[in-house]
Amino acid sequence: MTNTEKKYNIAFVGAGNVAWHLAQAFTAAGHTVVAVYSRSAASREELAGILPNAAPVSVPDFTGLAVDVILIAVPDAALQSITSELKVKPGTTVAHTSGSQPLAILQHIQGAMPAVFYPLQTFSKTKDLDLKKVPILLEATQESVVQQLECLAQSISGKVHEIDSDARRQIHLAAVFACNFTNHLLGISQQLLQEANLPTELLHPLVQETVAKAMQQNPYLVQTGPAIRHDNNVIQAHLHMLQEHPLFKEIYQKLTESIQATKV
Amino acid sequence: MTNTEKKYNIAFVGAGNVAWHLAQAFTAAGHTVVAVYSRSAASREELAGILPNAAPVSVPDFTGLAVDVILIAVPDAALQSITSELKVKPGTTVAHTSGSQPLAILQHIQGAMPAVFYPLQTFSKTKDLDLKKVPILLEATQESVVQQLECLAQSISGKVHEIDSDARRQIHLAAVFACNFTNHLLGISQQLLQEANLPTELLHPLVQETVAKAMQQNPYLVQTGPAIRHDNNVIQAHLHMLQEHPLFKEIYQKLTESIQATKV
Repeated sequence: MTNTEKKYNIAFVGAGNVAWHLAQAFTAAGHTVVAVYSRSAASREELAGILPNAAPVSVPDFTGLAVDVILIAVPDAALQSITSELKVKPGTTVAHTSGSQPLAILQHIQGAMPAVFYPLQTFSKTKDLDLKKVPILLEATQESVVQQLECLAQSISGKVHEIDSDARRQIHLAAVFACNFTNHLLGISQQLLQEANLPTELLHPLVQETVAKAMQQNPYLVQTGPAIRHDNNVIQAHLHMLQEHPLFKEIYQKLTESIQATKV
Repeated sequence: MTNTEKKYNIAFVGAGNVAWHLAQAFTAAGHTVVAVYSRSAASREELAGILPNAAPVSVPDFTGLAVDVILIAVPDAALQSITSELKVKPGTTVAHTSGSQPLAILQHIQGAMPAVFYPLQTFSKTKDLDLKKVPILLEATQESVVQQLECLAQSISGKVHEIDSDARRQIHLAAVFACNFTNHLLGISQQLLQEANLPTELLHPLVQETVAKAMQQNPYLVQTGPAIRHDNNVIQAHLHMLQEHPLFKEIYQKLTESIQATKV
């Protein structure tokens, strides 16, 4: 039996977007999600309800359950407080799923083997997702825990990496630019089209090509547009068009400045 | 014979990325590119050299050639000056390819039928591109010219739209956000990974999913990350990590502010 054939009992703390996707992927890979804790009764019941063997639990006390791995998938801001409430059997692996938080944030959970299980992806309940190509970044101090989580991660993804807290923090920062901020820019562009009663689909081929190109080459080397051409007439006209959107105007100015300051 | 089977003689003013792709697409569709003008001898000879029947020409005087359509594909900042040099036979269609410039910028070219032929895409010589799904936005005052350019555009693209100068200007502004600025953010994210000696491929699945999601739904509704969660600890940590990149820090702050100010 290879490592990836081992099956685990898993519990979730948190029932949001990340737990939603991971719990279903683990179930499909043959693991058993035995419990789902969330402060929100509706959330824990909703997630437990779509899993074959999961009980919704109303207190984060897992000492009475046969659980190998507890995954904490809560907003970063809630992570600290949940660690003080969590109760686990000695020797249970407890992994958080946050890109920005260090492993050490889990160090005060009595008896826990602390770890990180960070899927580098953006999750929405409303959109299906194939986790096979999603990098899963692991960290643990105990080698046995690293191996256990590698086994678990490899059962749902082909891209599993061991990454320390500093590197993960830097990856998370890069991801904020590549994902969260990119998404907002795409939102602004759609808003500008909608305000002119133009179909947002017009920009889809452009966005797809932009991203395809940026993944093949250094984006700085394929930069196009008025900023890189120092086309001040166009830049001034655009700023004038944005006068009713002062924040968009400031974003335009800062990004233009940064494009023009980029050295490649 | 349907309209899209008509074949035209075409000349290019400019031999950059846009001319490079359009000239090859027209040739593949059975039209004949007869001449390429560029101030740069190397550029006009390079483009003419890959086309079967094109002559590189060193002055923008097309009065001696059998040309149906002249396409001006030069940087926006160079458009005004080229219009004062250009010489054409009366009745020749002269179309610029700029998103930001009005039709009227061509009005002083003696004898020309002014038009716009704007392919809504980002072009690099180094990357092949299928124009079939690229929207081509047309404008002309003469209905006969609109029909001629529709015929020409439909021979290379399945997405041809007649769009006036105001709407095109708004689309171009939206495209700067969706393409030029998005590309720069992807560049920043790659730089941040490289500075930590991390592989840039790590972020590819995240970027692909972000963009796929943003094209299926309103991006504002699927926004994720520390800004939308008002996760100030993470935001402050990120700003601290960016202290050696003051422009990236300002971009981070402005985009965070804009995400938090977005009403959906």
